Amino acid sequence: MKTIHLIGIGAGNPEHLTLEAVRVLNTVDVFFLLEKDGVGKDALLDVRRSILEKHATAKPWRVVTSSTPARDREAANYEAAVKDWRDKRSEGIHAMIANEMADGEIGAFLVWGDPNLYDGMIDSLLQIQAEDPNLGMDFTVIPGITCIQALTAAHRIPLNRIGESITITTGRLLEDMDPAEVTNAVVMLDAKRTYRGFAETGHTIYWGAYLGTSNQILARGPVGDVSAQIDQALDNGRQRNGWIMDTYILRSNAEPGDKKGH
Amino acid sequence: MKTIHLIGIGAGNPEHLTLEAVRVLNTVDVFFLLEKDGVGKDALLDVRRSILEKHATAKPWRVVTSSTPARDREAANYEAAVKDWRDKRSEGIHAMIANEMADGEIGAFLVWGDPNLYDGMIDSLLQIQAEDPNLGMDFTVIPGITCIQALTAAHRIPLNRIGESITITTGRLLEDMDPAEVTNAVVMLDAKRTYRGFAETGHTIYWGAYLGTSNQILARGPVGDVSAQIDQALDNGRQRNGWIMDTYILRSNAEPGDKKGH
Ligand SMILES: C[S@@+](CC[C@H](N)C(=O)[O-])C[C@H]1O[C@@H](n2cnc3c(N)ncnc32)[C@H](O)[C@@H]1O
Ligand SMILES: C[S@@+](CC[C@H](N)C(=O)[O-])C[C@H]1O[C@@H](n2cnc3c(N)ncnc32)[C@H](O)[C@@H]1O
Repeated sequence: MKTIHLIGIGAGNPEHLTLEAVRVLNTVDVFFLLEKDGVGKDALLDVRRSILEKHATAKPWRVVTSSTPARDREAANYEAAVKDWRDKRSEGIHAMIANEMADGEIGAFLVWGDPNLYDGMIDSLLQIQAEDPNLGMDFTVIPGITCIQALTAAHRIPLNRIGESITITTGRLLEDMDPAEVTNAVVMLDAKRTYRGFAETGHTIYWGAYLGTSNQILARGPVGDVSAQIDQALDNGRQRNGWIMDTYILRSNAEPGDKKGH
Repeated sequence: MKTIHLIGIGAGNPEHLTLEAVRVLNTVDVFFLLEKDGVGKDALLDVRRSILEKHATAKPWRVVTSSTPARDREAANYEAAVKDWRDKRSEGIHAMIANEMADGEIGAFLVWGDPNLYDGMIDSLLQIQAEDPNLGMDFTVIPGITCIQALTAAHRIPLNRIGESITITTGRLLEDMDPAEVTNAVVMLDAKRTYRGFAETGHTIYWGAYLGTSNQILARGPVGDVSAQIDQALDNGRQRNGWIMDTYILRSNAEPGDKKGH
């Protein structure tokens, strides 16, 4: 039997580790770190390495790194491109578990934020289990604080007003939504600054980048008033650090009672 | 100056406390515990007390308890009833901060799950700050693992399929939704077993009660196949423990590519 833990490590603030995550870190024989191509992704690897050095102190462990395949970002069919990329990544993960872990050992992946949120690791491990039962692999999921929680804590706002739903979505999906239907939405994975389309639709934005880290930047206000400031922060951040990750909430200025939110 | 921390403590699993929450617990002079009327709520108070006893060990602290007002659950206007209840609760909180804390002291509320999710404490403190600047109160928000994260970790499922949005909503709001529009929804605060309306609409349910606790119960499958089992678990749980809290995800069986989810 080989056991894998998918450990949510929070989205940038090392203090967002849970006690469960720390306990489990200290049972692990081998940590699998997936290197991503591209500048700045190294910073995210560094966070993982320093978590290990600080918290995985109870027993010796080793690290196995693997580069993840590049994704075709120009592909016409987004779902198919992501699926294809995940399939390739799963093959690499499968090989690592097969070749780099002895029977009876415990392995772990340190997952950014919570493994439940826009991350493919749970699906990969389910797929590997289904395709190769002889691998004898089983896994657990350890939740972690997400970038959404880092955002609302930093802004000191609730995710929703009374009697209101919350939609969590991506920049890509937001592009196709009718602003009149966007009552209260969390937007992640937005490479195209889609908030700009909400400058005159009566929406307030609560925005954050590098959340939980010492570089954290926040902005909030009517989209039309703050979108230039956000554009600038994105440009500066990318220039200074080589990478930037941002998340935001768009909230219509109408009260939820005026119209049923969804 | 009086400082208040709203500390997310997770939704039942004491190991879901973050390192940040533990650090902050150890700076607090006075913990405010809100007692709710009604059976079983005591269990939730007990969780809080045992967290304090186990983790707040660095310095002496005291506890101030206050009962929260009962809410009018039969009110025709839900938003108004909740607002009214929250106003009354805010008055009590205001009085506690004014009367039970000295200047320069640090106070805290232990908030179930994450303070951002269907909890009124952030709004209450913002309101108190706005209404009474002379109180000299400021506050921080410490995120915590939510019941949603406990649910997905226990079921080992992602919150969403590739290229799909997630809606977080309440039983009350779900009642008014067209099942054809419910692609991927997390449902909380459902007193009416609203999942029953999805028995023949092509939805799968991932359900959990007492998540993160030693009483955790899980069920999953096509709604029509498992809704009787869930009904039974709700009846049994309430009978045995006097209270039950459950959360679930409803996922349409159509692939997200078939129709744009929202
Ligand atoms: C692939 S998703 C992974 C999310 C992660 N599983 C979580 O729970 O937060 C990556 C996206 O999350 C958001 N994100 C992650 N960490 C962030 C941070 N520290 N600050 C701002 N946004 C962040 C960005 O929108 C980014 O495009
Ligand atoms: C007022 S909301 C508070 C949610 C909390 N702030 C959080 O982050 O999880 C209470 C609702 O959360 C859900 N809930 C909270 N704890 C739960 C648990 N341990 N198991 C199942 N559901 C839970 C139930 O749907 C319940 O009606």
